[in-house]
Amino acid sequence: MDWGTDLWDQYDHIDKHTQSGLDLVERYIKFVKERTEIEQSYAKQLRNLSKKYAKRGGKEEQDCKFSNHASLQEILNELNDYAGQRELIAENMMTGICVDLTKYLQDLKQERKTHLTDAKKAQQNLEISFKQLESIKKRFAKEWAETEKATQQAEKTENDINATRLDVEKAKTHAHGRIHTAEECRNDYAAQLQKYNKEQNFFYYTEIPQIFNKMQDMDELRIRRMAEGYCQFADIEKKVQPIISKCLEGISTAGVKINEKQ
Amino acid sequence: MDWGTDLWDQYDHIDKHTQSGLDLVERYIKFVKERTEIEQSYAKQLRNLSKKYAKRGGKEEQDCKFSNHASLQEILNELNDYAGQRELIAENMMTGICVDLTKYLQDLKQERKTHLTDAKKAQQNLEISFKQLESIKKRFAKEWAETEKATQQAEKTENDINATRLDVEKAKTHAHGRIHTAEECRNDYAAQLQKYNKEQNFFYYTEIPQIFNKMQDMDELRIRRMAEGYCQFADIEKKVQPIISKCLEGISTAGVKINEKQ
Repeated sequence: MDWGTDLWDQYDHIDKHTQSGLDLVERYIKFVKERTEIEQSYAKQLRNLSKKYAKRGGKEEQDCKFSNHASLQEILNELNDYAGQRELIAENMMTGICVDLTKYLQDLKQERKTHLTDAKKAQQNLEISFKQLESIKKRFAKEWAETEKATQQAEKTENDINATRLDVEKAKTHAHGRIHTAEECRNDYAAQLQKYNKEQNFFYYTEIPQIFNKMQDMDELRIRRMAEGYCQFADIEKKVQPIISKCLEGISTAGVKINEKQ
Repeated sequence: MDWGTDLWDQYDHIDKHTQSGLDLVERYIKFVKERTEIEQSYAKQLRNLSKKYAKRGGKEEQDCKFSNHASLQEILNELNDYAGQRELIAENMMTGICVDLTKYLQDLKQERKTHLTDAKKAQQNLEISFKQLESIKKRFAKEWAETEKATQQAEKTENDINATRLDVEKAKTHAHGRIHTAEECRNDYAAQLQKYNKEQNFFYYTEIPQIFNKMQDMDELRIRRMAEGYCQFADIEKKVQPIISKCLEGISTAGVKINEKQ
């Protein structure tokens, strides 16, 4: 589908469709922002948990020489690293998705506004041209009626046996003047009609299709950008998975290496 | 190190050490419980987020025919599944670690108490036996003193020119009676001493070492059980990682398959 060709008369539809696209970007940014907040609070809770159960010198320090105490300490350290990875997810989502998409959204809103304004302006220009045509047509009709009236008046005067030759001459001159003016008006109208037809043609076959095609490009780019944002949402977490696996491996190691004989 | 051999006189130390072991189990259970609560609340927040941004029919339903809207819906579904996996982690930690270890901890406390009571009782029995020995020894000493006195009295009577033969006879009989009683007491003392030595031997070389070795076994089993619990902590999460990866893959797929031309 080509918007310029297939939707040339669907200004309102394109307006609504692109607005719904912007809304989706906005909704996605908000969604990711809330996800990062959840992730931040989750990481914070894990960090606090790790801190709470970590040994703080004194009597407990002594127990650390026993492997099962020392291993719990290592597990808490790994959990703290784990929390760091969750924080990294939150930060990368915030900068990689929310900040970038918000900036993009501003540009997009501006671009869409410009296109819609251009389309409206073109529409208005065509309407002004049409109004001019109407007004010239009206003037031509009025002049034509006046001319007919003047011609009839001249014929009537010519046939009037009471009219002087001066009267007849004056009526004829008046009628000729009218005819001349009417012909000028007809030429104006013909010129304006030609101008309007050309403009209308340009509007429907060039101007509006160009704007709508630009809007289609814009919307397609937006969708590609959204798709990128969706993939990032998963990629950011996929990226830390090996490190999270390492943390889990560290916990297992801490468990496995415990020697109950020591 | 063998507790029965190397720590036979370290009752207080073993008492303290095994108590600190129980405390560690208790602390670990509490730690895992708090982790499950964090995990539960994290999962709940993700579920709510997914629900909040999911489409609820009406006008928005229409938009779903566009791939970029439909893909967000799929991402929300995957996030909901993801939350389900976090819940599974919480549940498995609760039943696999907290519930099991709590039950084990109760048994452990009971077993430790029994061992410590047995050791105390053996100690008390040995003390009672020692007191008996002391009392028999005292009686023997007293009887011996009486005998010496009676013997001296009999000699004194025999050498007394004023004593009758009856007096001498009576003194001698009394002295003999005393000697007999003292010899009986000496035999009692010897028997009790032998008995006490045997009991002391049994206490130090058999009874206490056996109890302390059982406590060592108990503590080593506890440490192995702790090590298991530490590994479970990681394993439970490792187990859901492939499903979490699948969710992330699902999100990527939803992003990739978007067709901006539709």
